[in-house]
Amino acid sequence: MSLDSVRQVSILKARRGEVRETLDWVVVEEPLEIRVQGEQLAVLMRTPGHDMELAAGFCLTEGVVGRFADIGAIRHCREDRDPPDREGPNAVDVTLAPGIAFDRDALRRNLIASAACGLCGRASIEALSRRTPPSSSRAVVRQEVLVSLPARLAEAQGMFERTGALHAAALFDVDGRLVLAREDVGRHNAVDKVVGRAAIEGWPLTDAILMVSGRTSFEILQKAAAASIPIVCAVSGPTTLAIETARAFRLTLVNFLRDGGFNIATCPERILLSA
Amino acid sequence: MSLDSVRQVSILKARRGEVRETLDWVVVEEPLEIRVQGEQLAVLMRTPGHDMELAAGFCLTEGVVGRFADIGAIRHCREDRDPPDREGPNAVDVTLAPGIAFDRDALRRNLIASAACGLCGRASIEALSRRTPPSSSRAVVRQEVLVSLPARLAEAQGMFERTGALHAAALFDVDGRLVLAREDVGRHNAVDKVVGRAAIEGWPLTDAILMVSGRTSFEILQKAAAASIPIVCAVSGPTTLAIETARAFRLTLVNFLRDGGFNIATCPERILLSA
Repeated sequence: MSLDSVRQVSILKARRGEVRETLDWVVVEEPLEIRVQGEQLAVLMRTPGHDMELAAGFCLTEGVVGRFADIGAIRHCREDRDPPDREGPNAVDVTLAPGIAFDRDALRRNLIASAACGLCGRASIEALSRRTPPSSSRAVVRQEVLVSLPARLAEAQGMFERTGALHAAALFDVDGRLVLAREDVGRHNAVDKVVGRAAIEGWPLTDAILMVSGRTSFEILQKAAAASIPIVCAVSGPTTLAIETARAFRLTLVNFLRDGGFNIATCPERILLSA
Repeated sequence: MSLDSVRQVSILKARRGEVRETLDWVVVEEPLEIRVQGEQLAVLMRTPGHDMELAAGFCLTEGVVGRFADIGAIRHCREDRDPPDREGPNAVDVTLAPGIAFDRDALRRNLIASAACGLCGRASIEALSRRTPPSSSRAVVRQEVLVSLPARLAEAQGMFERTGALHAAALFDVDGRLVLAREDVGRHNAVDKVVGRAAIEGWPLTDAILMVSGRTSFEILQKAAAASIPIVCAVSGPTTLAIETARAFRLTLVNFLRDGGFNIATCPERILLSA
């Protein structure tokens, strides 16, 4: 496993009444732009490493080409890095074999919009910051309330949980009262559903807690920032870009919230730790 | 929880040496097309229910509008169903408030290609079948080999697992030998990486097993079908559309493969059950 794929990050770890600063391994998340014949086709949020395999597999499974022999070459676009040597190469260009046509319009007919942008995570955060300010929320949540959230989320999930294929997202207030929970096959859909309901009802989210059942990637933090939610909690781990996004928008990011413990990656001032 | 969101599906359940046919609850997965001012913006794979919330939240968190008041109306496009009453309404149209502009090109600049297509899951499967034939693989895997795969996958994951934010995908042969494992923050990326490597190396996949660490949605089955992989196994549950896709392309779909047991949703003839 390449060291480009994981990175050590300083976090606050709360376990059994004890809180200490420690280093934790976090998986790297960066966008990869896939170009075909020089034209941008897609941006994937991926873990760096094996980019040629990823591009080849993507072109095959998404129908860009019918067989591997239709690909002439795949290479990183190193010259496009800005600044040139700051980030790893986050764009690949796929050149088709002679005589193979690229029907870009047919492929782009069905698209999923993504906030992932440009050639590196930093550019994605910058793009988001043009329309979203950092959080100035003074919300504070007590440690006892925080550790009670997973059980409250599980209670709200009900029968749905048994399908074993669902993501949950819930809004809580800082006293741990459940405002709304939604479940969906898509992690971001569950978040969009609670954010959308809050917008429809006119509920302010500047003191709210967003809790998700799984891990936290860039997209979850980007959605929380856009919705002005200051505190994001998750049962599983974060990615590097999730942490960077939380830091850029002054969001409090709590991970591995389970079994009475948790890790704080950013803005710990919103968590009131027990004495 | 609406009954549109879960559905009972007949499966084969193998537990402690016993195999029986039973009904299991499966989460519904269907595409939702989001149109803004009548123009298609995105297709999300989602669980039906709370579509207005989802569309409102998506428009807010993806920057389609700056605030909820910029949305004039959101409604299902019922008239577009084909055939009209067969499927639920899988498209919503967002109308902006008077004077609010829709900068479609700015939003579409960064896009993620998706095989999800049209207004219902059936249309997505049909679109895929225009370029991918059903599997005619005669691969057979013994039950003892099948139940050994999770431990072999865990062994291959190594240090990466500790980040708590990774998906794994692995290729095995029918004797349970690990061919290749890859991990990524994105579930589909891990699949594309193993498929891409196999293409680069020229390994045939028509007798291969694809094992994924999480759940199976439409996209995983679509990628397996496109890569001619006949057997897909997962530690967690499937969606309805994953099962329908597996059936349409004659793939064997095995879920909840853990602790010595598993469920078979489709094409059980490729699993040699112990006497």
